[in-house]
Amino acid sequence: MNGESLAGGVLVVGTGLLGTSVGLALRRAGVDVQLTDQDDDAVAEAAKLGAGRRHEQGVPVALAVIAVPPAATAAAVASVLDDRLAAYATDVASVKVAPVEQVRALAAEPGRFVGGHPMAGREVSGPAAALVDLFEGRPWVLCPDEGTDPQAVTRALEVVRLAGAVPVTMSAADHDAAVALVSHAPHLVAALVAGRLALASDHEVRLAGAGVGDVTRVAAADPTLWTDILAANAAAVADVLRRLRTDLDQALLALDQDSATGRRNELGALLESGVAGRARLPGKHGAPATSYATVSVVVGDRPGQLAALFADAGRAGVNVEDVRIEHSPGQPVGVVELDVGVGAEIVLAAALRTAGWTVHGFPLPSS
Amino acid sequence: MNGESLAGGVLVVGTGLLGTSVGLALRRAGVDVQLTDQDDDAVAEAAKLGAGRRHEQGVPVALAVIAVPPAATAAAVASVLDDRLAAYATDVASVKVAPVEQVRALAAEPGRFVGGHPMAGREVSGPAAALVDLFEGRPWVLCPDEGTDPQAVTRALEVVRLAGAVPVTMSAADHDAAVALVSHAPHLVAALVAGRLALASDHEVRLAGAGVGDVTRVAAADPTLWTDILAANAAAVADVLRRLRTDLDQALLALDQDSATGRRNELGALLESGVAGRARLPGKHGAPATSYATVSVVVGDRPGQLAALFADAGRAGVNVEDVRIEHSPGQPVGVVELDVGVGAEIVLAAALRTAGWTVHGFPLPSS
Repeated sequence: MNGESLAGGVLVVGTGLLGTSVGLALRRAGVDVQLTDQDDDAVAEAAKLGAGRRHEQGVPVALAVIAVPPAATAAAVASVLDDRLAAYATDVASVKVAPVEQVRALAAEPGRFVGGHPMAGREVSGPAAALVDLFEGRPWVLCPDEGTDPQAVTRALEVVRLAGAVPVTMSAADHDAAVALVSHAPHLVAALVAGRLALASDHEVRLAGAGVGDVTRVAAADPTLWTDILAANAAAVADVLRRLRTDLDQALLALDQDSATGRRNELGALLESGVAGRARLPGKHGAPATSYATVSVVVGDRPGQLAALFADAGRAGVNVEDVRIEHSPGQPVGVVELDVGVGAEIVLAAALRTAGWTVHGFPLPSS
Repeated sequence: MNGESLAGGVLVVGTGLLGTSVGLALRRAGVDVQLTDQDDDAVAEAAKLGAGRRHEQGVPVALAVIAVPPAATAAAVASVLDDRLAAYATDVASVKVAPVEQVRALAAEPGRFVGGHPMAGREVSGPAAALVDLFEGRPWVLCPDEGTDPQAVTRALEVVRLAGAVPVTMSAADHDAAVALVSHAPHLVAALVAGRLALASDHEVRLAGAGVGDVTRVAAADPTLWTDILAANAAAVADVLRRLRTDLDQALLALDQDSATGRRNELGALLESGVAGRARLPGKHGAPATSYATVSVVVGDRPGQLAALFADAGRAGVNVEDVRIEHSPGQPVGVVELDVGVGAEIVLAAALRTAGWTVHGFPLPSS
């Protein structure tokens, strides 16, 4: 049976994107979900979407899921626990040290709380953006400590399971250091690289290609949201940034080297380390990053071209693992790069050529 | 008539990826192309692919295109000019100050040379990777100075035109500074961010998402090639990196701020500057970056799913401007993000929903 430990129902506090998505996933599993938010319209909208019913005072629910902004999280946790609205509580804030410490200071029985962070989100917010499968296959971190009641963990794990997420447990400090390293600091660095372009001349940015586009893509994200995130995890982000500054100084020493050989050796070592780090990133399905082969195809700028391309790829029986489009400045054509399993690129390139596509990157048939 | 100023023929020196691609494009336009390379097999392969014929001593050709590694460029230029193998010469090296200065020192008549740099390349190299349309729609920089013979520029421009590229003229110093800013320094920074991941624990990298994947994508590129590029443009790259270090120090001051309000204000300003810089990058067709709307669709991990998706998008008459696939760890599903013109996302989301796709990011139809 689904959600046995949640038989007493769940109270979602905060019906924004995350809270409403949690409600949708729990309702799908048949859990009784009650909803509350300081914005009454948001509760109405979430309820209308099927995320649960409006909260009614009564017996405490099995678990409260606190889905309010990080700075407001601890007070909300303490309030639902102390007022006996819920037997246990978890949260979804993207930092963990500060809320966990604050709950310890504010709540009468902080052991009834376990910190949580589903690694999922969207560029859009509010209940209307909620998705029943927002957490599907994503890691969902829980941060129990020595004072945490095992029942709190069991019930939070049930939410993770019903949301289709992958549970990961670590300490709050480890969590904050990890997201600083793999998300917050890279985001800030991308914003700094992009910020340099704000001061560039038109003839400089005109030479920009796909590489700098990738490096700076995240810099387009909502600065208000990211200010919140960075400010809430400032110490851990600063720690990563300080180590990056050391690396940057090493790169500068390498570039400034008088000896051409020394310069090359030191730059080479830094770049090799980058290759090794890049290979650490999880690939598809959480597996280690796989090497894919890339097939580049020229497409015209008309509706239907991509459809035709993928139809032809599908007919070749090749599964496309990733896809990127690079547009050419000044021309109504672009190059679509299809990543496929190593070996499959030969099959795909041949099939696409036969279907009349201009395929880059493989020896032309000899005449 | 095509290639009038090149009626005397073109000599391509160095039949790797770039040289062979130039040969293919010129041959397509009917220009007589001769090929030479220190590797005889490479010449044979390029000739077989249709990039031209083996070089024969005779009357000087109209223009030599020097496509050898940056460090060997100036000597090759001086040799073809002084030995009267060609009336004029240009090159394709990715840095310009050093070769231009070296030609001035080495060649008897350096005015017969104009530096060039087509902003195109591939992850693969050698004549077999050559493409007749490699330069199609890409900027091709030429760097004439006060000593350059106008005939050298006219003939180099004819190569640019026949290759389908977009000519851009700037000084060698401006070129090197521009590519340092929009390509070389971002690449090095991405490698440093990726290098930090090399030292991370498994539980840290497990939390990595799409953002850090974008930021570090270029760090997977060939470190030998990039060592060459960075070493050849070391001073300009160091200049950008020093300014970035100043920005990094400012970010650290912001993160270390005692005042929560001050911290937020300063981080916010840095992130806003990143948004502004990102918006400077050329969008499709060289136009200013446009805002696109994104439609996110859940797809299964089976061949043919993307084909079906793009077919349905095509039927909706919506032109997909960009596409990204985000895979979910641990699950055989992914989310495909389709960027479309603002407004078209409503049409596309509705059409895809009707066709049975799970579409994220738009209000669910009210029940």
